[in-house]
Amino acid sequence: MTLWVRYARNGQEGFGTLEGDAIQPHAGDLFAGATPEGASFPLAEATLLAPVRPAVFIGLWNNFAEAAAKQGLTHPESPLFFLKSPRSIVGPEATITPPPGYTGRVIYEGELGLVIGKRVSNASEEEAAAAIFGLTCVNDVTALETLTADASFPQWARAKGADSFGPVGPAIATGLDWSTLRVKVSLNGRVRQDFPTLDMIIPPARIVSLLSREMTLEPGDLIACGTSVGALPMRPGMTVEVTIDGIGVLRNTFAG
Amino acid sequence: MTLWVRYARNGQEGFGTLEGDAIQPHAGDLFAGATPEGASFPLAEATLLAPVRPAVFIGLWNNFAEAAAKQGLTHPESPLFFLKSPRSIVGPEATITPPPGYTGRVIYEGELGLVIGKRVSNASEEEAAAAIFGLTCVNDVTALETLTADASFPQWARAKGADSFGPVGPAIATGLDWSTLRVKVSLNGRVRQDFPTLDMIIPPARIVSLLSREMTLEPGDLIACGTSVGALPMRPGMTVEVTIDGIGVLRNTFAG
Repeated sequence: MTLWVRYARNGQEGFGTLEGDAIQPHAGDLFAGATPEGASFPLAEATLLAPVRPAVFIGLWNNFAEAAAKQGLTHPESPLFFLKSPRSIVGPEATITPPPGYTGRVIYEGELGLVIGKRVSNASEEEAAAAIFGLTCVNDVTALETLTADASFPQWARAKGADSFGPVGPAIATGLDWSTLRVKVSLNGRVRQDFPTLDMIIPPARIVSLLSREMTLEPGDLIACGTSVGALPMRPGMTVEVTIDGIGVLRNTFAG
Repeated sequence: MTLWVRYARNGQEGFGTLEGDAIQPHAGDLFAGATPEGASFPLAEATLLAPVRPAVFIGLWNNFAEAAAKQGLTHPESPLFFLKSPRSIVGPEATITPPPGYTGRVIYEGELGLVIGKRVSNASEEEAAAAIFGLTCVNDVTALETLTADASFPQWARAKGADSFGPVGPAIATGLDWSTLRVKVSLNGRVRQDFPTLDMIIPPARIVSLLSREMTLEPGDLIACGTSVGALPMRPGMTVEVTIDGIGVLRNTFAG
C-alpha cells in the first residue's frame, strides 16, 4: 500500500509518497511512471495540496442502500451523476467558503473517491478495475437552497460546483481494498457519518465501466462514489473531517 | 475583427488567425499574448480542430424568450446551467456518435459560445464583459431519452456529456457584437433553427458576472448561452450545420 500526496514546500509544488511523518519526493508522472528523487523531508515542512487535479470530476447520487431506503429511492441500474467543477477542488486544511450572498444551508457529504490511472473507453468491469489507480477522501459540499432554488431546474452543477466546494485528500492510497472501508465524517469532533463502502449500490469497477461507455475517462479523473445517511449543514467556524482508515483524514474548516 | 482557429497540419497542432482562405500561424498563448510566426499557408492544408479546449464547459438552459414562451417557462434571474464534460468537445467536420447501445433520439442545439479570456471571480458586469475574449458556435448535442430515463434524477451531465456531444468552432471571433447575431442550424441543408441572440434572457456580460460570483472562470473556459426553438432529432448520416455570420459554419455529421 502506498500513499501519494501533492505538496507545496519552499514555494515549489511537488508530489511523492507519504511514509510515516516523512515525504519522499518523486519525479515523473504519477500515472505514467514516477521515481524517487532527492532526500525525504518531514511532512511538517510541507503544506499538503489536493492529491489530484482532475479534468473531469464526477459525483454520484443515490448510490448507498441505507440512504436510498431512508429516502424511499429505488436502486439505479447505472450511475446517476452530476459534474463538479474542477474549480471546486481544494486540499486538506483549506477553508470552505460559501459564495458571496449565499446564506442558506451548506452541507458536507463524506465520500470515497476513485482516482483514474489509465484512459478507458467502453471498458469491461475487469478493464475498469485495472484503471482505478487509487482511492481518496472527498467532501462533496453542497449549497442546499441553491439546489432547489428554481422549481423547473434542479441546479446540481451550481449547488456543488462553487469554489472550495470540493475538498479532496489528504492522499491517494493504492493497493487498498475498497470493499473493506468505512467513510466517517465528524463535525467539530462529533461523528455524524459512519458508513461501510460495501453498502454501495453500484460498486467501483461497475461505476467506471458504465461511465466509460459514454465518456472517455483519463488519468487523474476523479469519481466521488456518493454519500450515505448523516449529511448535515455546517455552521460557521466548524471543522469537518472526512476519515477513511488507510487513506487518512481530510480536515477542512467552514467559513460560513 | 479577428478569427482564431486551432488546426492540425503535417502531424502538428497549432493555432493562428484565419484570413480568407489562409491561416497565419501564431506562437505564444492565445489569451496571454500571441504573435505571428512563420509563413501563412492555405486553409486547405490544415484540419481545423475545436478552437478552444475548455477546462470548464458550461451550458445554459432556458435562456431564450421565444423558447421560454413556447414551453411556458418563467424567465430565470440567474443562469440555470449544467456542466458539459470537456471530453465531449470535438471540432468542425467531426462525427457525432451516440454511446454504444443508445438508440433513442439525439438532438442538436445551436448556441452562441462565449470564450473566456481572463480570470474572473465575483466580477461586475463591466469586468465580465472585458473578460469575454470572443465568440464561437456550439452544438449542444443531447441524448433526449437519457435526460429523462430516471424519474428521480434528470441526467443533464450524462445526456449532454458523451464523447463527441460538444462540437465547437470553426473559429473564435473577436471584436464581434454579440447582440447583432443570429444562430442558424440546418439539417441536411434545411434550416431548422434561426434565432436572434438579442432574444437572450440573460445577456453575456450578466451571465459571466453571475457565474463568476460562485465559480472562478479562467482563460479558455466556454459558456454555451442556451438554445431557442427548433431543436430536433438527427437521423443517421445527416449533416448538421450551426452557422453564425461573422464566426463561420460548424459542420458535423451524425453517425446514429
